[in-house]
Amino acid sequence: MASTVFAQIPFQSKSLNKSPNTHFVPSFKLPVSLSFKARTALPKRFRIRAGLIEPDGGKLVDLHVAEPERELKKSEAASLPRVKLTEIDLQWVHVLSEGWASPLTGFMREPEFLQTLHFNSLRLDDGSFVNMSVPIVLAIDDSQKANIGESNSVALVDSDDKLIAVLTDIEIYKHPKEERIARTWGTIAPGLPYVEETITNAGNWLIGGDLEVIEPIKFNDGLDRFRLSPIELRQEFERRNADAVFAFQLRNPVHNGHALLMTDTRRRLLEMGYMNPILLLHPLGGYTKADDVPLSWRMKQHEKVLEDGVLDPETTVVSIFPSPMHYAGPTEVQWHAKARINAGANFYIVGRDPAGMGHPVEKRDLYDADHGKKVLSMAPGLERLNILPFRVAAYDKTQGKMAFFDPSRAQDFLFISGTKMRTLAKNKENPPAGFMCPGGWQVLVEYYDSLTPLDKGRTREPVPA
Amino acid sequence: MASTVFAQIPFQSKSLNKSPNTHFVPSFKLPVSLSFKARTALPKRFRIRAGLIEPDGGKLVDLHVAEPERELKKSEAASLPRVKLTEIDLQWVHVLSEGWASPLTGFMREPEFLQTLHFNSLRLDDGSFVNMSVPIVLAIDDSQKANIGESNSVALVDSDDKLIAVLTDIEIYKHPKEERIARTWGTIAPGLPYVEETITNAGNWLIGGDLEVIEPIKFNDGLDRFRLSPIELRQEFERRNADAVFAFQLRNPVHNGHALLMTDTRRRLLEMGYMNPILLLHPLGGYTKADDVPLSWRMKQHEKVLEDGVLDPETTVVSIFPSPMHYAGPTEVQWHAKARINAGANFYIVGRDPAGMGHPVEKRDLYDADHGKKVLSMAPGLERLNILPFRVAAYDKTQGKMAFFDPSRAQDFLFISGTKMRTLAKNKENPPAGFMCPGGWQVLVEYYDSLTPLDKGRTREPVPA
Repeated sequence: MASTVFAQIPFQSKSLNKSPNTHFVPSFKLPVSLSFKARTALPKRFRIRAGLIEPDGGKLVDLHVAEPERELKKSEAASLPRVKLTEIDLQWVHVLSEGWASPLTGFMREPEFLQTLHFNSLRLDDGSFVNMSVPIVLAIDDSQKANIGESNSVALVDSDDKLIAVLTDIEIYKHPKEERIARTWGTIAPGLPYVEETITNAGNWLIGGDLEVIEPIKFNDGLDRFRLSPIELRQEFERRNADAVFAFQLRNPVHNGHALLMTDTRRRLLEMGYMNPILLLHPLGGYTKADDVPLSWRMKQHEKVLEDGVLDPETTVVSIFPSPMHYAGPTEVQWHAKARINAGANFYIVGRDPAGMGHPVEKRDLYDADHGKKVLSMAPGLERLNILPFRVAAYDKTQGKMAFFDPSRAQDFLFISGTKMRTLAKNKENPPAGFMCPGGWQVLVEYYDSLTPLDKGRTREPVPA
Repeated sequence: MASTVFAQIPFQSKSLNKSPNTHFVPSFKLPVSLSFKARTALPKRFRIRAGLIEPDGGKLVDLHVAEPERELKKSEAASLPRVKLTEIDLQWVHVLSEGWASPLTGFMREPEFLQTLHFNSLRLDDGSFVNMSVPIVLAIDDSQKANIGESNSVALVDSDDKLIAVLTDIEIYKHPKEERIARTWGTIAPGLPYVEETITNAGNWLIGGDLEVIEPIKFNDGLDRFRLSPIELRQEFERRNADAVFAFQLRNPVHNGHALLMTDTRRRLLEMGYMNPILLLHPLGGYTKADDVPLSWRMKQHEKVLEDGVLDPETTVVSIFPSPMHYAGPTEVQWHAKARINAGANFYIVGRDPAGMGHPVEKRDLYDADHGKKVLSMAPGLERLNILPFRVAAYDKTQGKMAFFDPSRAQDFLFISGTKMRTLAKNKENPPAGFMCPGGWQVLVEYYDSLTPLDKGRTREPVPA
């Protein structure tokens, strides 16, 4: 069982942590030999202890093949038609395998795909709804479809032809690309990053089915130890006796405004009567667009910021959310929230323009900055989740630190835009003292310094405030 | 009360019907003086008798101002800022006023608009959902917004500046046109008829609020007497002791394949144990695109077809569904079905590619022909409605009539396309005997004959099979 194996990794022991101020779980300073999660498969029905929010559908799905059956499954798969996974496909296999998308048991068949596009939710057998806003689908082209023929199952392999999973009881159906894009993003303008990366050149068919993942997915990038599954996160929250878990999704460097917000949220939850609210600081770790700061640099930056002691290690869990990023605004923020329910969070902090970006063609934001939190508050299947709107923080010149914006003395506040931050970091200048801890800022300076001049031209908007 | 007044109109009395074979309700042959529905306002809570399906939200809304209050309302409205309604806006006022969109009480405010775009459904206070798939919104431009200023209400006037309604407790919010189009149609390709007619050049703001309609909307086109409200239809179904009502939405001439389908549906319902299933033959009467056959000609054609006795007048109610047409395929078919629940229908016949059309730019259908019925069967808020998929009818050469297509002897069947029909009707040729009754066909020939050469160029696809 994962809980047993997991306990062998002493990430919860601060005494092993060479940098006592970091409250990463596990710490960056753990020996590399301990940094891989030696997870084994769990039974599909995972018992949830009282106290944490129930996962969608009442149980977390776990799509890993149990260890004793792996060899048999591999030999069976040898005779199946093969479908090669892209890097992003593999990220979705990872997401599905760990139950972030519970109760989904694999890539969507057409009924789930259509419900996702039209209703952002799936109806369960008992008539209730769970939220599901982004299609989790696998595209194949005409020749792959022909190759699959009448087979009821396919083997999914990675770029090295290594067997990753078997997809069973498959359904192949048309991939209505334009409609998928329009209904997911609310536009079909050229230049949507995820669309160009995964849809435009993808095949004209989608293949759905039940996933059986041979063994837990590893990315071997030095960060696997931070990729805690929903089951592991729930175990960690229970170990800490959390009576509330509040999730903070991010894909950008953390500044002191974020830290203020997280600290203040805990204070508000304590005022509400919770005894031990735990923060899940949950950077997105899958595909991001070229001008976002890469995951490895963000994790370094988070480490430095957290070492600075702005957040309390006792009440903070840092982990990677393995999903790819759609940049689909109000549609995607629902996915970000729903997946965190499955990880045990019952509070979700939502900011201005979540999962948004500039319109790829027009000079405006793609989404209304307020639609994300509004849509989230109304979304079917998210009724159990408490939505905490982001309060706007800005640099308070009178205090020399980040503070919640007070419109009655607007002249005292400085809004530091992403463009401003990028210019400062590229020029190795410092932001106002108190905006970000010096160690975290240094990571950003190093990141921009590491880019070739060509790369630098592509990093237009690295750090939205 | 409408029920009282309505009883004075003898449309249910076949003895007054000079053409006994027509089963229109009321008959086309009624004297004009009796052809206007002399409706007065009903209380907003309308009691539904047992037997018919409950309207959405449990009650039919009726947004007409009660007669005694009309003069006061008019004088109050005189001082309000004015918004001029387009023809299609007025059609929506009509739709809303009669409760087709129950429980909506007026043009959507932003919460309803966002729920419609993202979820195709609205959450009620008790947590349940009703279906709502197309935005029913009123657009205003910058100058109208400025003119409204801080007013809490506006007067809605028609093109002659006649007061139609008051919109109270208003909310003005941004009109995200591209997103609205993409999420409703699944494309933003230029050439979508409803988009070009109502959205492209509309204002950048939407105004929502509660509607108070001064008096029942009339179009004075000779067809008002066929525009039965949901309340009137329910009364008619109850008068006939219907224990099932099956609705057939159409916007095209009726051929004998349609008639076969409707007759067969009644047979199936009788087999299911219903004692008196009533057909609601419900042509759409609002805005349609230029190359559809206009409502007045369709009604003439329906009359001729029905006079032919193919359908049973005792078990058929013909009435006009007053909604404008979106041509939004799987999204719109939900609206077509939901509105019929409010009119008392508990069975809905859905065909191939409902509310579909050709892609405006690419050489293909805009929607997958099967998505409409699939989406309809999964749609939130339509659980109570029984969906009856359309069986494909074609011309059976061995029988010399329309029959359900039998794939085992495909060579015996002739599919008569819309293009084929148009060519025949334009050339004043006849289709195969048994395809459509001669009187109905003659109406089509006359319609195409009445067009100028310019118009004829625009009628590309008048009669999809």
